[in-house]
Amino acid sequence: MVIVGGGFGGLYAAREMRNARVAITLIDRKNHHTFQPLLYQVATAGLSPGEIAAPIRWILRYQDNAEVLLGEVAGFDLERKVVKLTDDEIGYDYLIVAAGVRHAYFGHPEWEAIAPGLKTIEDSLEIRRRIFLAFELAERDAARSGGGQDLNFVVVGGGPTGVELAGTLAEIARHVLANEFHTIDPKRTRILLVEGGPRILASYSEKLSRSAERQLVKLGVEVRTSTVVTGLEPGIVRFGDTTIPAAVTLWAAGVAASPLGQLLGAATDRTGRVQVKPDLSLPEHREVFVIGDLATLADANGAPLPGVAPVAIQQGGAAAKNVLQLIAGQPTTPFQYHDKGSMATIGRVSAIAQIGKLELSGFPAWLAWLFVHIFFLIGFRNRLMVMIQWAWSYVTFERGARLITGDTELASWRKPK
Amino acid sequence: MVIVGGGFGGLYAAREMRNARVAITLIDRKNHHTFQPLLYQVATAGLSPGEIAAPIRWILRYQDNAEVLLGEVAGFDLERKVVKLTDDEIGYDYLIVAAGVRHAYFGHPEWEAIAPGLKTIEDSLEIRRRIFLAFELAERDAARSGGGQDLNFVVVGGGPTGVELAGTLAEIARHVLANEFHTIDPKRTRILLVEGGPRILASYSEKLSRSAERQLVKLGVEVRTSTVVTGLEPGIVRFGDTTIPAAVTLWAAGVAASPLGQLLGAATDRTGRVQVKPDLSLPEHREVFVIGDLATLADANGAPLPGVAPVAIQQGGAAAKNVLQLIAGQPTTPFQYHDKGSMATIGRVSAIAQIGKLELSGFPAWLAWLFVHIFFLIGFRNRLMVMIQWAWSYVTFERGARLITGDTELASWRKPK
Repeated sequence: MVIVGGGFGGLYAAREMRNARVAITLIDRKNHHTFQPLLYQVATAGLSPGEIAAPIRWILRYQDNAEVLLGEVAGFDLERKVVKLTDDEIGYDYLIVAAGVRHAYFGHPEWEAIAPGLKTIEDSLEIRRRIFLAFELAERDAARSGGGQDLNFVVVGGGPTGVELAGTLAEIARHVLANEFHTIDPKRTRILLVEGGPRILASYSEKLSRSAERQLVKLGVEVRTSTVVTGLEPGIVRFGDTTIPAAVTLWAAGVAASPLGQLLGAATDRTGRVQVKPDLSLPEHREVFVIGDLATLADANGAPLPGVAPVAIQQGGAAAKNVLQLIAGQPTTPFQYHDKGSMATIGRVSAIAQIGKLELSGFPAWLAWLFVHIFFLIGFRNRLMVMIQWAWSYVTFERGARLITGDTELASWRKPK
Repeated sequence: MVIVGGGFGGLYAAREMRNARVAITLIDRKNHHTFQPLLYQVATAGLSPGEIAAPIRWILRYQDNAEVLLGEVAGFDLERKVVKLTDDEIGYDYLIVAAGVRHAYFGHPEWEAIAPGLKTIEDSLEIRRRIFLAFELAERDAARSGGGQDLNFVVVGGGPTGVELAGTLAEIARHVLANEFHTIDPKRTRILLVEGGPRILASYSEKLSRSAERQLVKLGVEVRTSTVVTGLEPGIVRFGDTTIPAAVTLWAAGVAASPLGQLLGAATDRTGRVQVKPDLSLPEHREVFVIGDLATLADANGAPLPGVAPVAIQQGGAAAKNVLQLIAGQPTTPFQYHDKGSMATIGRVSAIAQIGKLELSGFPAWLAWLFVHIFFLIGFRNRLMVMIQWAWSYVTFERGARLITGDTELASWRKPK
């Protein structure tokens, strides 16, 4: 059988079948699984890429029935039961597609070059480069002209990623870099978090959402809700008639499903997510399952399941079990999501958490967040290193991975041409 | 005063003047200092970039008289005492230029795309990408065709960097990846170390050089001395009439001084190194010093000083002292190199070392190497992390940073078009 995608969904599907007599081929266009919930830490230099990502081949090294192939899926032929790669075809009896989502720009693909989103290791390195390069270029400009101009950072989108980025940016400006520059004052950096809806972290209760906003403001972030971005140009963000300069603009405002969803030929929702049956299979193809962010399915109350790691993990296990049941000639089982809670981190010691009816915010929520995230980091080595890294940067306010790699001159996203 | 370059020479020059009443501006085109002796560990996924590099600004954060500027030096006007940046000018009373070297291709610049060298973090990530991508592509090809083709890795140049790369490649193929592939057998990978001269590590004694060769062969490296590369094409290395296929070719065969040396207008040697006076200043400009790999100076016996970190470190201190002496109206002091020994590592527990008259090889040399390199890693945090990383990968044979970032499809250096 074939699994497309080595994210949480694909990996947990493979693992669920580790003792089954099936030959699994897992295809991904990267050689590594990325622990997406901590990508923002790489983007803000708190962690190195190697600490939140691990080769898929390494993760599955003890699973003899799983072969890992690096490859780009170009399409499917569901009738012939074939996955098409760019230069090859791979046949399957059963197929699980877990290709995830990318960020989306609401019909403005030209915004991507100006405001990168955060889905891959490469994205996080590009964002890291822009953040730290902005301070360096400001210092150089200030050293030349004698006067310092305040830096603006704009984060578009008040979901968990936007909140994490804005909170960490504030920490960097106020603490990490505070005393390392001679001409500019990083503490005077403005960090704007812009959300189109009436409140940030809208998937949480109103109370938690307000608490998160207060924690952000305390960190020095300006939160602007009900504010829709209408234009992005190099160095400039527009909201209707208002225009503000932005040394760096980051995008955390929307996602669109992988184009592989559409290539399956099944019905998709507005963002390209595939509508699956309760057992996660395609309506016309009981041997094809779609899981994780790429699938859309309603929970018991009719609300769509959120695009978070726990849903992908549980669906990976459920789809794999259903495949094994089909092989055994048994009926499949409808998927049921067990919501163990959700949490979002805001800064050094701030977070909000919703665990069943329990609502936490501030330091207790942050501790819960830390525990859960480190616990789930795949691979013991990574877990240990991340813990040490964090303990260290918690004590010292240092961020070890503050390297600007790649081009340091061409800041085309920054300056009007 | 102005220092150009944040490598060992520039940093130690700045540090030497930490208590002096001088305003120092250190200019580098990267924001980070790179611990070059460990770059090969990043290239082979043993360490992450953040563990061997640190922001220059952070290293000098407690030195109030030193300002760090990110900038690309485009030239000098020694008469007007001005350093020209691409978009600015900076005046100086005293100037120390420590811009280092790049790899050179003996008049074949077109070889660079085929066989990358190892001087920067970006170089090391590109090499890492090629190494691990080669195994992934071989697995994919083998899975398709049914048969596995042996992989060839060719390292050109038998100096310390070439030996380190070849030894570590052997370790990766024989141990790290040994059991993670289903179709290919990484243990059958051929690793060739090609040296034009009669023996590898020619700067060491004949005895140590032979010992290093034996240690390499034991690790599984084929060493070919007196073999000159006459042609490089994608996927192919030529030595005269012999042609061998190469999945990855790495270049460790030669260096050329930074073009900034030539821009100083002074006499240079064949590789572009600036000929300096015994006090490290330019013959016509006592206020301009050139140090480290960019300078050429003979030792007491008339032999040119080697391009290694200890020379750069000692020259940085010496040039800074000479600047302070000039400011105080005193004569300058000729530079004298104190050779504390040299060492090259070969693999997991192999190395050679020459310390005065003492010659070590094998495990004792490796222990000495480990101690010296970790001790000199700048920044305590890095030292701690590197130690933990190494202890971990020593015990487990794991390499944590095995990420292929960037493009995974376009292997243009590999396949004939």
